[in-house]
Amino acid sequence: MHDATGPDRAKRLIERVLTPSGRSDVPPFMVMDVMAAAERIEASGGHVIHLEVGQPAAAAPRSAIDAAHAALEQGRIDYTSALGIPLLRERIARHYREAYGCTVDPGRIVVTTGSSGAFILAFLAMFEPGDRVAVTVPGYPPYRHILTALGCEPVLIETHSVTRHALTGEALLAAHRKAPLKGVLVASPGNPTGTMMTREALTELMGVAAREGIGFISDEIYHGLDYAFPAVTAAELSPNAVVINSFSKYFCMTGWRVGWMVVPEALVRPIERLQQNLAISVPTLSQIAAAAAFEGRAEMEAVKRGYEENRKILITGLPQAGLTEFLPADGAFYLYADVSKFTDDSFAFAQRMLQEAHVAATPGVDFDPVRGRSFVRFSYARSATDMHEAVARISKWLAQQRPI
Amino acid sequence: MHDATGPDRAKRLIERVLTPSGRSDVPPFMVMDVMAAAERIEASGGHVIHLEVGQPAAAAPRSAIDAAHAALEQGRIDYTSALGIPLLRERIARHYREAYGCTVDPGRIVVTTGSSGAFILAFLAMFEPGDRVAVTVPGYPPYRHILTALGCEPVLIETHSVTRHALTGEALLAAHRKAPLKGVLVASPGNPTGTMMTREALTELMGVAAREGIGFISDEIYHGLDYAFPAVTAAELSPNAVVINSFSKYFCMTGWRVGWMVVPEALVRPIERLQQNLAISVPTLSQIAAAAAFEGRAEMEAVKRGYEENRKILITGLPQAGLTEFLPADGAFYLYADVSKFTDDSFAFAQRMLQEAHVAATPGVDFDPVRGRSFVRFSYARSATDMHEAVARISKWLAQQRPI
Repeated sequence: MHDATGPDRAKRLIERVLTPSGRSDVPPFMVMDVMAAAERIEASGGHVIHLEVGQPAAAAPRSAIDAAHAALEQGRIDYTSALGIPLLRERIARHYREAYGCTVDPGRIVVTTGSSGAFILAFLAMFEPGDRVAVTVPGYPPYRHILTALGCEPVLIETHSVTRHALTGEALLAAHRKAPLKGVLVASPGNPTGTMMTREALTELMGVAAREGIGFISDEIYHGLDYAFPAVTAAELSPNAVVINSFSKYFCMTGWRVGWMVVPEALVRPIERLQQNLAISVPTLSQIAAAAAFEGRAEMEAVKRGYEENRKILITGLPQAGLTEFLPADGAFYLYADVSKFTDDSFAFAQRMLQEAHVAATPGVDFDPVRGRSFVRFSYARSATDMHEAVARISKWLAQQRPI
Repeated sequence: MHDATGPDRAKRLIERVLTPSGRSDVPPFMVMDVMAAAERIEASGGHVIHLEVGQPAAAAPRSAIDAAHAALEQGRIDYTSALGIPLLRERIARHYREAYGCTVDPGRIVVTTGSSGAFILAFLAMFEPGDRVAVTVPGYPPYRHILTALGCEPVLIETHSVTRHALTGEALLAAHRKAPLKGVLVASPGNPTGTMMTREALTELMGVAAREGIGFISDEIYHGLDYAFPAVTAAELSPNAVVINSFSKYFCMTGWRVGWMVVPEALVRPIERLQQNLAISVPTLSQIAAAAAFEGRAEMEAVKRGYEENRKILITGLPQAGLTEFLPADGAFYLYADVSKFTDDSFAFAQRMLQEAHVAATPGVDFDPVRGRSFVRFSYARSATDMHEAVARISKWLAQQRPI
């Protein structure tokens, strides 16, 4: 380092400072490109129907907004304790009693900066660098990208229609036998599919994970938005599961960045220390609003009924429009449609649909690098009018497309 | 894994799931124990003077609070783009012109979830696992704990009174020659000391770092709270420095969790991808309030004048009380006092001072595991009345202590 001289050395040294780390080389969301293109169309006067967005069309419950107003006037918005405001932790524990009939000690609740903050804490507390952690594809891309950034190895397991796109104990065991897994993460309802695991499927999978010493993480961010059958929480099935949830989806509080975890007793203190150091605490106003949000359930149930109506419009309309194959849309606000009749390049397909029909959707390659080339995700979080218009536009547009 | 049977195997498997990772084994803040003890004294009717807290006594500027109220009524609080609301990024860039006379492209501003979020992004984007990163002691403990959690090796460099407790190029070089450093992080004004680097000291250190290819991170969270001389931003001295700042201290917005970075052009995109995956976006209401906070500078200057008065009370009063040695309290709202005349166990010393004099302070061991045994940090962010009372109580209490 001290022998070279001149401009070459200077260049090397600047490169040493400015070259991004290998672990920062995670892929972007392709949907961002779709959103940017949609904005350009709107800027030049076009009317785009937005089926690409993963966030609710409604605002937070009035109770949450009122609580935030009140807190703003009550004085300083200080740091809170790292695990969260005690009142909120207790309110979340009560939610488990009320919604699932399941007892959870408030001491096991950790408030987090969205579910994003929860994934970081869970992965850091449970896994060493190099640990193999199973995630399903199709699935939410940040699972594997956060794991990679934190030095873990995401092990992608494909799900199939024969198991309603649920991960099975058998598939988990097969991956574990290739090389031991340290953890597994599943989501029900899932993103991008909206498919849900039945109680039997979740129980079977968690049993296999427990018998093999594989840590279990259940992403329950879309709980509450279940239409086909009631969602089951992993917290009810094992005190050793890590459950991750958020106020973003059911409570329509995306930009507030507040979520929570239910963690095994043994992980409370390590996670508290990590949160003290990595975040200090979770946004205070959001915690106060979140505690009040539970009083706004009636409002949120009305929002949910809107999604149910939207879901019916798409489930009925898309097959008539020419998209006859999609995964079971049991919950969340997504429908994951097979477009293989028309394309093996879903990114180009989504771009053309946007340009020509002014309907924005998310290419499946964001969620499944391989099979996603034949899928598109439609979000039905917006209005019923938008859903009808989308079906009409897609129908007209697909009639002009040549099947491959 | 598949050969053992019976209860031993079951126990091992549960342990495999429940054993926290090595990297989650970061120390807690000892000040938390002090704060808990203070709460117990107050719960039983005692009146504690709080010199342990690291947060301002005032609320956010009225302009910020009003902006938050307005945003709550304007509609949904949605996700924002990962790098932050464009308006806020532009306003921060303007701040560099106004406060430092220095031009920074808004495209190089990254809005973060407090400075905590900024450290995670900087460390992940700049450093690979195993990289050595220099930090000073005494210093803010999460620097080294976040580095450890993310697989880097914090290299602790002690600062000394002969350099006004600034890190020098010479000390940096010495550590670099033992084994190459990939980065260095300094804070001016510093925590727990309040000491500041002069323009000359910062320029010299950054020059050495650049010549050796060592990435430079400047924590400027206490900028604006400078009493001895104006703080200098690293953004003015090099486009390759990573600057970290926050609305928590000068703008009294701790619990809002909003901060920012100025990053080299080459790191913008990697950091954007990391933030998309690790956080999605920064709390929206906090971003809106932060943009408006800059209009509340007159209010914040009044708060700063309060700190200045408090600082004078302590600088004059503590020597009379018996604490004659402390580091140059140039900025922030801290004074780091040498208590070696009385103890070589600052944790026990702080505990006794709290129990007997009802004055809470932070033991130096939180900031410097070795020499911190002889130091205590006093925060002067509260009222002048509290400062006078603290000096009186400490004076009376120290008179009863036996020097060692």
